[in-house]
Amino acid sequence: MDSDRLEEAIGYHFAQPALLAQALTHRSHGVGHNERLEFLGDSVLNCLVAAEIFRRFEALREGELSRLRASLVRQETLHQIAQELALGDYLLLGEGELKSGGHTRPSILADALEALFGAIFLDGGFQAAQEVIGRLYGATLRGLDTKATGKDPKTMLQEFLQARHTPPPKYAVVTTRGAAHSQEFEVECLIPELSVRTTGSGASRRAAEQEAAQRAYDQVRK
Amino acid sequence: MDSDRLEEAIGYHFAQPALLAQALTHRSHGVGHNERLEFLGDSVLNCLVAAEIFRRFEALREGELSRLRASLVRQETLHQIAQELALGDYLLLGEGELKSGGHTRPSILADALEALFGAIFLDGGFQAAQEVIGRLYGATLRGLDTKATGKDPKTMLQEFLQARHTPPPKYAVVTTRGAAHSQEFEVECLIPELSVRTTGSGASRRAAEQEAAQRAYDQVRK
Repeated sequence: MDSDRLEEAIGYHFAQPALLAQALTHRSHGVGHNERLEFLGDSVLNCLVAAEIFRRFEALREGELSRLRASLVRQETLHQIAQELALGDYLLLGEGELKSGGHTRPSILADALEALFGAIFLDGGFQAAQEVIGRLYGATLRGLDTKATGKDPKTMLQEFLQARHTPPPKYAVVTTRGAAHSQEFEVECLIPELSVRTTGSGASRRAAEQEAAQRAYDQVRK
Repeated sequence: MDSDRLEEAIGYHFAQPALLAQALTHRSHGVGHNERLEFLGDSVLNCLVAAEIFRRFEALREGELSRLRASLVRQETLHQIAQELALGDYLLLGEGELKSGGHTRPSILADALEALFGAIFLDGGFQAAQEVIGRLYGATLRGLDTKATGKDPKTMLQEFLQARHTPPPKYAVVTTRGAAHSQEFEVECLIPELSVRTTGSGASRRAAEQEAAQRAYDQVRK
């Protein structure tokens, strides 16, 4: 399959397409396979995830950081991200692996994703790898923010604004849809001082507000 | 002890001296200790060593690269580098650790060195960490070149020059010292085309030549 779409999905364009091709070649396909790139990419990923959680979670101690990183770089997480990218569609596999469904095997997909990170590191350097991994891990890391702090998005947003002497956000219901027992709310979150306007939806007004707050929080933190 | 000398030894000057101080503070000394930095530095070191051996040893497979990296980032290697830097002289330890000789304990020194790498990464970025680690690991990595390729320095130098269409080096005995049964040879290695002149010494002419060749090889590869 044309790898242009994959490059679009990861938000990175290779200067050396041969590196991308190598990252997508499973050992079963023959020479020029991705095992060495996987070794490199695994290290790059570990380092970038470590740097990111070190920065995000100032209160966590070494042991907690180690556990957190392990959860982020394990096969299950990599497999999930690989699926979101439809990485299996681009893999080159040997015949045996093709027939036995190698395209969907979690270990093959996770390894190929690591190899892809290694290829980006070689092609574009540390910064490029950091940007791509930051994007692909964004949702997962934001989910951790909430869990790690034990605070919901509305609280985190409000505290963030307070610390910067900005007035609290305004929430307003934009629309409600559906019958009384299965309503869906759409809510907007406004921070005029920062030109932020986000929306969220959910089965309750509160749930919709939390989603809008999360999106606003993601914007103002950038 | 004044950390200027340590900065000189590692060839890096901190923009944020507080990071250096933290890297040198053992947990036993109290708050602001180096455990989180150690977590970060360990990841940075792993990544940089992986990138370096990936580049140096093109023929090695994933499993061999993993073993090689493990040998480079293990406590013993870190301890040795920490000793060369006299890192123990700069550590801040609690009273108990001070009394029981914590300054020389391999685990404390290795951890502090990793923390130092983490601090450099935060202070100066990936590139700065790469340069410092490259310098500190230089001798170790050059030793690996020989082992990994199975070739001695004279052969490696000659092949290197041949590939660049440069005439082979000339070796000449400069001096011999000592009685017949315990002579020491000093040999020079000359590559006029590259303005290289190095010397080596050893108990045999061959050993002295190999040392001179290694030094010449280190120079021409830069």
